[in-house]
Amino acid sequence: MAIVLGPNQYGKAENRVVRVIRDSSRHEIRDLNVSTSLRGDFHDAHVTGDQAAILPTDTQKNAAFAFAKAKPLGAIEDYALNLAEHLLAQTPNATGARVSVEEYEWQRIQVGGVGHDHSFVRDGQGTRNTIVTVDDSGPARAVHVVSGIEHLTVAKTTGSEFRGFLKDEYTTLPETTDRILATSLVARWRYAGTDVDWDATHAAIKALLLERFATIYSRALQQTLYGMGEAVLEAHPAVAEIKFSAPNKHHFLVTLLPPGTENPGEVFIAADRPYGLIEASVVRDDAPDAGSAWSAVPAAC
Amino acid sequence: MAIVLGPNQYGKAENRVVRVIRDSSRHEIRDLNVSTSLRGDFHDAHVTGDQAAILPTDTQKNAAFAFAKAKPLGAIEDYALNLAEHLLAQTPNATGARVSVEEYEWQRIQVGGVGHDHSFVRDGQGTRNTIVTVDDSGPARAVHVVSGIEHLTVAKTTGSEFRGFLKDEYTTLPETTDRILATSLVARWRYAGTDVDWDATHAAIKALLLERFATIYSRALQQTLYGMGEAVLEAHPAVAEIKFSAPNKHHFLVTLLPPGTENPGEVFIAADRPYGLIEASVVRDDAPDAGSAWSAVPAAC
Amino acid sequence: MAIVLGPNQYGKAENRVVRVIRDSSRHEIRDLNVSTSLRGDFHDAHVTGDQAAILPTDTQKNAAFAFAKAKPLGAIEDYALNLAEHLLAQTPNATGARVSVEEYEWQRIQVGGVGHDHSFVRDGQGTRNTIVTVDDSGPARAVHVVSGIEHLTVAKTTGSEFRGFLKDEYTTLPETTDRILATSLVARWRYAGTDVDWDATHAAIKALLLERFATIYSRALQQTLYGMGEAVLEAHPAVAEIKFSAPNKHHFLVTLLPPGTENPGEVFIAADRPYGLIEASVVRDDAPDAGSAWSAVPAAC
Amino acid sequence: MAIVLGPNQYGKAENRVVRVIRDSSRHEIRDLNVSTSLRGDFHDAHVTGDQAAILPTDTQKNAAFAFAKAKPLGAIEDYALNLAEHLLAQTPNATGARVSVEEYEWQRIQVGGVGHDHSFVRDGQGTRNTIVTVDDSGPARAVHVVSGIEHLTVAKTTGSEFRGFLKDEYTTLPETTDRILATSLVARWRYAGTDVDWDATHAAIKALLLERFATIYSRALQQTLYGMGEAVLEAHPAVAEIKFSAPNKHHFLVTLLPPGTENPGEVFIAADRPYGLIEASVVRDDAPDAGSAWSAVPAAC
Repeated sequence: MAIVLGPNQYGKAENRVVRVIRDSSRHEIRDLNVSTSLRGDFHDAHVTGDQAAILPTDTQKNAAFAFAKAKPLGAIEDYALNLAEHLLAQTPNATGARVSVEEYEWQRIQVGGVGHDHSFVRDGQGTRNTIVTVDDSGPARAVHVVSGIEHLTVAKTTGSEFRGFLKDEYTTLPETTDRILATSLVARWRYAGTDVDWDATHAAIKALLLERFATIYSRALQQTLYGMGEAVLEAHPAVAEIKFSAPNKHHFLVTLLPPGTENPGEVFIAADRPYGLIEASVVRDDAPDAGSAWSAVPAAC
Repeated sequence: MAIVLGPNQYGKAENRVVRVIRDSSRHEIRDLNVSTSLRGDFHDAHVTGDQAAILPTDTQKNAAFAFAKAKPLGAIEDYALNLAEHLLAQTPNATGARVSVEEYEWQRIQVGGVGHDHSFVRDGQGTRNTIVTVDDSGPARAVHVVSGIEHLTVAKTTGSEFRGFLKDEYTTLPETTDRILATSLVARWRYAGTDVDWDATHAAIKALLLERFATIYSRALQQTLYGMGEAVLEAHPAVAEIKFSAPNKHHFLVTLLPPGTENPGEVFIAADRPYGLIEASVVRDDAPDAGSAWSAVPAAC
Repeated sequence: MAIVLGPNQYGKAENRVVRVIRDSSRHEIRDLNVSTSLRGDFHDAHVTGDQAAILPTDTQKNAAFAFAKAKPLGAIEDYALNLAEHLLAQTPNATGARVSVEEYEWQRIQVGGVGHDHSFVRDGQGTRNTIVTVDDSGPARAVHVVSGIEHLTVAKTTGSEFRGFLKDEYTTLPETTDRILATSLVARWRYAGTDVDWDATHAAIKALLLERFATIYSRALQQTLYGMGEAVLEAHPAVAEIKFSAPNKHHFLVTLLPPGTENPGEVFIAADRPYGLIEASVVRDDAPDAGSAWSAVPAAC
Repeated sequence: MAIVLGPNQYGKAENRVVRVIRDSSRHEIRDLNVSTSLRGDFHDAHVTGDQAAILPTDTQKNAAFAFAKAKPLGAIEDYALNLAEHLLAQTPNATGARVSVEEYEWQRIQVGGVGHDHSFVRDGQGTRNTIVTVDDSGPARAVHVVSGIEHLTVAKTTGSEFRGFLKDEYTTLPETTDRILATSLVARWRYAGTDVDWDATHAAIKALLLERFATIYSRALQQTLYGMGEAVLEAHPAVAEIKFSAPNKHHFLVTLLPPGTENPGEVFIAADRPYGLIEASVVRDDAPDAGSAWSAVPAAC
């Protein structure tokens, strides 16, 4: 019986990389939040304090910024893959590298109906992200790309019921055939490979998620999520599985005053806490093994 | 010499009022954050503890929700004016009522290129708000409307310099003729009266602020803000004054590696703290008196 | 009629200054958040863009850090006064300087019952702060010190009622003779002068605020705040006035299950929004003029 | 090849349960944030929308509050175990229940040197928490208790170096033999069983973590964390493993002005982003299987 080092990883989190493409007077802006980490045999760094095998997090940071210049950025998935391969190559004791990237969206400011050359305003529905893992710990190198979107806040004002549920002596919730359904969606999907048109696929999946949220008649948030995920897997063979984490942002019908005032689904209070939290995944039953793709990913069930 | 009660106010903050307009199958959603407060002669409530003159904050909350039903909501300015007048009328000891409203923007989800009837996604550039004060403390009732926008995050990737500034022995900042200028703008403007097309005016002012931010060649954030404010006052006689609070969100040029890598304004780190904080106002020299319009408004200089 | 520059100020916000006093092996740590701003005649900077009169915010930042070394830090009030005087002296066009400081509290880590020499843990009840203004805009220099505490979260589980209040047709709140009273207190007090033992006075006022919160039988949060403020002014002649901003953090009694379960003030839900917001001040009727002491101070009524 | 439902769970998050123990005039207050979730065979709820197997999150909420009354609360681990067993028992299709609890600490307000009977102030170093899982999915019921602490912010002003690390062409960090080491620690430890004095063990582990942070001469944050974890496992046979997530909160030495001013480790700027993020675990090599204890736990590596 011994006390030993268990799983570990380290890196530099939340590098706020801003890249301006100024090849012409019509600039573009890319606004990223980049986090890196390395896994591997870092026994000595932990147990004896010898840092000889450790590529400092400061160096990882420098690489994150350098790669925003040296390579055309392209999709965040390509940037992350390049950076992860680099970090792994630079660190002999590392058996895995992970790079996570969030991208914030900017629109051109409209001046006289035309998008301005170099002035932008933050905008957007949700935040696109990716978590790329290059894993050398097995016999063959595995590369995992999990992309997704966070903070995609959606609501439907009807077409949502919740009834027929299990009841016990702690149940007071009335059944309803018409309620507001609202969530701030986190969706992450794992690609089966890397031969993917990242930008086009991401845009198509996001549009499909929104469309299915809108059009599915909802018997529960679980059923809505399942239907959204099923649609993504049906339409996108490149996607092996998709995971959702969705707070049920409750909107409670208010008892209006003066007494006698009706409230036929018109005035609600948006509640903060507690909230339902629904987590679900939809998978292909023949999906390639996920390996370390999801390890330490926030809120993955 | 005595110890006495000084200025005071009380109310219910952050009522999350959601109103669904469902007069047809094509719903609309309004998503508000409403805060109310009352001022006046509340000496006894403080000094003896007698609450006879106090309209409870819970009652103010009930009114905030009721007014989302009983009146067509209209612009947030109209809703706030109605609610403020009501609260003042209900509270004999009150000499003033303030209602602040933030409105969160939703877009219809696109399904097959058409906006869905009852499904929405949160979106938007900045958050529209208003702070309405009805003040009965003087000989005549004064009504103040201060509207604005918060979290309007803008950036320009060139067309911004900062040089020719005062220097002392603590100055190390190099002059620059080309930098990123970025801010998360708070703008609040006071209307001279209430005979205003609130929605149209707000939209026009927001568009003008963005356009001027884009097109002014910036010698400093102060000069940009002044130019933005001046344009608003020139174009909108209904506006008596405008105030800005604008963090200078620094983007520092990164020294790229390997050594010798050039960085001609391409790769930046977006910094968090510290940040410059520029506050400025532009006013008409014949503006009607602001009275209590700005009292206790956050970050007004 | 003309459009002109109105009130304005600028500076560097949230300089995170950490000072280690290491004159012996027993270190001390001071952990500050420092914001500076300058007011005055900065017409050209705004209107023509000429920055010749502007001491850059970067220079203000450098001074904030330099003053953490050059002077013994002492109380945050002394540090802020020194820095404000310096900034004013360096900037001929400035007529006023403001320095705000928050201080985060650290305790020595206990090792074998003894506080460690150089290892610390963050702790503390509320955050001490000060807002110092040196104002040269009048015939004589005015110096204002407003000190205070934020995030002082307190609760009493009985000894609090709320009844006898004004009722209208929107009132549903039942009267209560026993409730939880809880708030996250912001208190700011203005000193009449600067000949004050800052540390001792702050500690005494904080202790007194807590003690009065505990011992006053509360008929309303307003009455509790007034009593707390009155006690401070009675005990501390150096204090000219005190202002409070106090959210009434509602704790609602829960209807317990199974049906028939009693809940005699035992189980509550702590609510987030909306919350009551009570703002009140207690003043000496012969207090020296506040001048610009409170201008642009957050949430001062 | 088919598209199927993958792992899923659902529950009510962030129930803010406040319990007042008022058996005598000397009250006690317990302030909890409780989240519940259920796992199991919820195929129909997702795929057909049939909710017959679903115990609503609202019912879970009601139980969370009821259990704060019906049982003596005891340690949060006991409360969570009771609640998890209950939820599992009420939901035939569930094969697992998880209850997470955070507890906020309050101190009695001192009045005349004595702790007040019913008035309290929030305080404390870090937030204690537990994540309890009752897992019925295998042949025998497994019960997992992972307890921990979050937001334990610690710093040491010397006794920390970082040198001898791996270098590449992106390395610019100088080696240092004396730096500030600071982190906001998250530690979670898994107990091997449930026959534990939860309160005493938690207090002892927290004290030991602090003591070891203070006394270990740090060659890197990794080595400090390993030493802290090793000490916990050596002293507490009840602990099977411990995991840390520790941001390296950088404090950069400031170049002081005027030029020539020395800064021998005295004035630092506390940086926000990016930050190092060190995650490590220390385990017994004969620890009982973790099963589902860590699944979906935030930031577990």
